[in-house]
Amino acid sequence: MAMIGILGGMGPLATVDFMDKIVRLTHANSDQEHLPLLVANLPHIEDRSSAIIDGGADPLPALLDGIDLLNRNGVGLIAIPCNSAHHWYGPMRARSKAPVLHIAQTCVAAVPRAARRVALLATGGALVSGFYQQALADLDIEPVLPDESMQLRVAACIREVKAGKLDAAGARLEDVLIALASQGVGTALMACTEIPLAARHIASPPLILIDSSLELARATVKYACERGWNRPA
Amino acid sequence: MAMIGILGGMGPLATVDFMDKIVRLTHANSDQEHLPLLVANLPHIEDRSSAIIDGGADPLPALLDGIDLLNRNGVGLIAIPCNSAHHWYGPMRARSKAPVLHIAQTCVAAVPRAARRVALLATGGALVSGFYQQALADLDIEPVLPDESMQLRVAACIREVKAGKLDAAGARLEDVLIALASQGVGTALMACTEIPLAARHIASPPLILIDSSLELARATVKYACERGWNRPA
Repeated sequence: MAMIGILGGMGPLATVDFMDKIVRLTHANSDQEHLPLLVANLPHIEDRSSAIIDGGADPLPALLDGIDLLNRNGVGLIAIPCNSAHHWYGPMRARSKAPVLHIAQTCVAAVPRAARRVALLATGGALVSGFYQQALADLDIEPVLPDESMQLRVAACIREVKAGKLDAAGARLEDVLIALASQGVGTALMACTEIPLAARHIASPPLILIDSSLELARATVKYACERGWNRPA
Repeated sequence: MAMIGILGGMGPLATVDFMDKIVRLTHANSDQEHLPLLVANLPHIEDRSSAIIDGGADPLPALLDGIDLLNRNGVGLIAIPCNSAHHWYGPMRARSKAPVLHIAQTCVAAVPRAARRVALLATGGALVSGFYQQALADLDIEPVLPDESMQLRVAACIREVKAGKLDAAGARLEDVLIALASQGVGTALMACTEIPLAARHIASPPLILIDSSLELARATVKYACERGWNRPA
């Protein structure tokens, strides 16, 4: 029986939300039927988006330290509830003995088959990195990128969640979603793990929202339960 | 800069709730101003209450494994968001290099000065262990213990939270609180970390509720922020 490793803290509330999803997705009637987790919540890892866009401090050494910590303690799988960190997926995967799920792969797999144009709600860094555009292109889906003023609002929403201002973040996200819906976009990827926390403060979103954190949690629970990690040794 | 170690999974949802409290209690405007955590969420640890009451399997070896795991990874403090596990506080404290906060000590310190009689909402195991009664007696506060039928309802509420049935748990807890209030009890300790999750489903509790998980989170954040663990190295 192995533990699931979670490399988190990017941000901390998104990590808590991801763990909450793992626990709620696990069918269990007692503590002992739940999944063991080892969570490295490391919020001091350098800002991913500014490293990608502005040449800010490189987070990769700290990301690899987190990968090493989890492997040293024998985890059997690693999930990283931060989309932007997946810009460094290649070197993290190469360093890790345990398999590492890719959040964009699990997220795009949840897009409804009928959707041909899908909006990307993500950090500026993740958009510049381009791995979501590639994952969508592989499925023949056209990514809709916010224009500059809309992206500023998405970035502000993400910052507000990281600062615990969830009501403000929800109102800002709702403006963005209304604008997207008025452009005829029917589906949006919440391709940043802070955004689902803002979305919870919107009564009825005007388009279909795919939650990258929820899809990663689903894939994580499926992987672990198929291997019986929820059963005592 | 050290990490906070959390020995959790008892139960998993209570651990997520405890982490959520830690994050929300930390004043931070960005990820980097949050506290680093290492969370060993180990739900397979044997049931604490049945070990205390019924001679069930001893959880102490698994508890000490968790303490060892956290210490091996250099945590500077350990918090355990499970009240019943504190029956084994002595051996865990003796084994740990890092200090271990005591949930009952942080909880009883939050009882209003005017309160002279305080109800104990806890697992049967924690009640038999008696460490809460002792902590209250040290402050000249009289513990009010539920009678047998009320304790059955408290235990059912705890089980329901562990199984993710939060609405049912809330309704059951509300019945208990109404009965306590009708007996003239004005304050109750939620001395089991599952109970605050049920309490959130009660619109207006009829007495003052002290949350052991919240008080442990407050003490944890205070300890860590006083030592600057929320500031990047």
